[in-house]
Amino acid sequence: MASEFDLHNAIYAHNRQLSAAVTLPPGDDMGMLRLPSGQEILAGVDQVVDGQHFNSSTDDWAKVGRKAVARSLSDVAAMAAQPIAALATGLLPPGFPHDQAMQLFDGMRTCAADFSCPLIGGDIASFAASNTNSGPVSCTVTVFAQPGPTGRIVTRKGAQPGDVVCVTGVLGGGWNTAHHFDFTPRIKFALALVNEHTVNAMIDISDGLGQDLDHIAQQSGVAAILNAGTIPIRPEFDEENAMRDGEDYELCFVVSAVTAADLPTAIEGVPITQVGRIVDSHDNPSPYRTSLHDRNSDNTWNDLQSTGWMHE
Amino acid sequence: MASEFDLHNAIYAHNRQLSAAVTLPPGDDMGMLRLPSGQEILAGVDQVVDGQHFNSSTDDWAKVGRKAVARSLSDVAAMAAQPIAALATGLLPPGFPHDQAMQLFDGMRTCAADFSCPLIGGDIASFAASNTNSGPVSCTVTVFAQPGPTGRIVTRKGAQPGDVVCVTGVLGGGWNTAHHFDFTPRIKFALALVNEHTVNAMIDISDGLGQDLDHIAQQSGVAAILNAGTIPIRPEFDEENAMRDGEDYELCFVVSAVTAADLPTAIEGVPITQVGRIVDSHDNPSPYRTSLHDRNSDNTWNDLQSTGWMHE
Repeated sequence: MASEFDLHNAIYAHNRQLSAAVTLPPGDDMGMLRLPSGQEILAGVDQVVDGQHFNSSTDDWAKVGRKAVARSLSDVAAMAAQPIAALATGLLPPGFPHDQAMQLFDGMRTCAADFSCPLIGGDIASFAASNTNSGPVSCTVTVFAQPGPTGRIVTRKGAQPGDVVCVTGVLGGGWNTAHHFDFTPRIKFALALVNEHTVNAMIDISDGLGQDLDHIAQQSGVAAILNAGTIPIRPEFDEENAMRDGEDYELCFVVSAVTAADLPTAIEGVPITQVGRIVDSHDNPSPYRTSLHDRNSDNTWNDLQSTGWMHE
Repeated sequence: MASEFDLHNAIYAHNRQLSAAVTLPPGDDMGMLRLPSGQEILAGVDQVVDGQHFNSSTDDWAKVGRKAVARSLSDVAAMAAQPIAALATGLLPPGFPHDQAMQLFDGMRTCAADFSCPLIGGDIASFAASNTNSGPVSCTVTVFAQPGPTGRIVTRKGAQPGDVVCVTGVLGGGWNTAHHFDFTPRIKFALALVNEHTVNAMIDISDGLGQDLDHIAQQSGVAAILNAGTIPIRPEFDEENAMRDGEDYELCFVVSAVTAADLPTAIEGVPITQVGRIVDSHDNPSPYRTSLHDRNSDNTWNDLQSTGWMHE
């Protein structure tokens, strides 16, 4: 199986020389390019698949459609950008009921409209009735966006040693509650945040705080340390859920220590919690690039690289 | 099953009031919107599915990737627009070989680069290994584009009674030859065409000349009549193939009679053939909105509406 990382490498290795217009290459939450008019535009695509991102035997199609769009809008929030428009596709089994298809796309349309991001196109395909290998329902949503009023966007690349790691909201249990269907993409929060404060790096938490923070650490060429006991956790879930469940669609962002001291406890009603720090890779006290430092139990370092959370 | 037409209706019915920025709604080859900077941007999405658009047991993955991108670029040609950038997704069965995934995305990347349309993002998802309902490979490609140097784009809506219907290239047999893999999206042709001539309506021929011309007739509120014996046909195929095979990825366009008299026989090396005319719906001599008029056999009218070609 090719990973998303391989794909980005495969695409980008050959793109570098041919398109000076690409101002942010594949590998972040969205790509960005500069149009001949000077306007910068961001674009990203995400997909949802039955059995992975939803369960068609129990879930409502309107919720599935909403989630498909909201996931892509969460990527827009991660760049502190403003959505412009969306395009959607659905790939449906033969004989998929018409009213359910309408519910699916109505869920998409409503969510897109709620975030001022009109659906301007789409395509529905069906597996051929003759195809015995007919698959489950899948949808893709492409969103494009523009920088907000500040003209600045935030990438994964920019965390500096000494910076502070923050998260929004509460983490954990996203998949095992209705949260993964009814979360609010943090677009308003992110635009308000960058309007008042300088943010060095940001990502949305879809795979779990450990893995997503590690993307920032990797792209920024630094190490990241989370402080156990500081992570805001959804009631009835624990730190391991917060680290590895994913499906939180909250933001993880990195600011300088000076900026961190100025941060309010909430912006646009969304709580902010300081949960860790960035260190130089060479001065990293942990053996791991991204780690959870448990100060209460003999300075244990837990590896958070690449798998969400590796408990020792 | 929901049709694409239903989808567009479902999306657009509610979009009308909320987005003055949408300057061309869903329903054409691409949607278009005006950015706050005044820049107009077009976007469209298309998908390819194993068993419908290719056959994974015989086809090369690089060709499948090329086709996925080229189909979307054919939509750009149909609007006489210039591509800017593309985003791609792949949905692969668990255990799909890494080298084949790379071939697929390399085919996409190469084709996109050939048309100055860099891939700036993408997403690969896999069916969960536990999902017994694992499906065939599918890909989506979103392309965005901008109006060409003339600043004008061409839609499906604009054909006038008295206009002449033209097609590029030869039609028929697209699926039963290698054409559906190695066709050239008619972007250069379309830009050159609109640079010299006023084009009232245009569409690319993916579903068959009958069905695609009928989209122009429907959107323009007119009737269309093709003249039997004038359709350019690929050697070893017949008129029925030209009408209904689809997978031609040539252009069907409509110009005034005055413009038609000025048209060369080829532009950018692509042959142009005049194949029919547009009439007022109320003065339509045929009982059908879009028809093939067989002048050699007792003035027979064949219905071309909605199914490619209904032979009598």
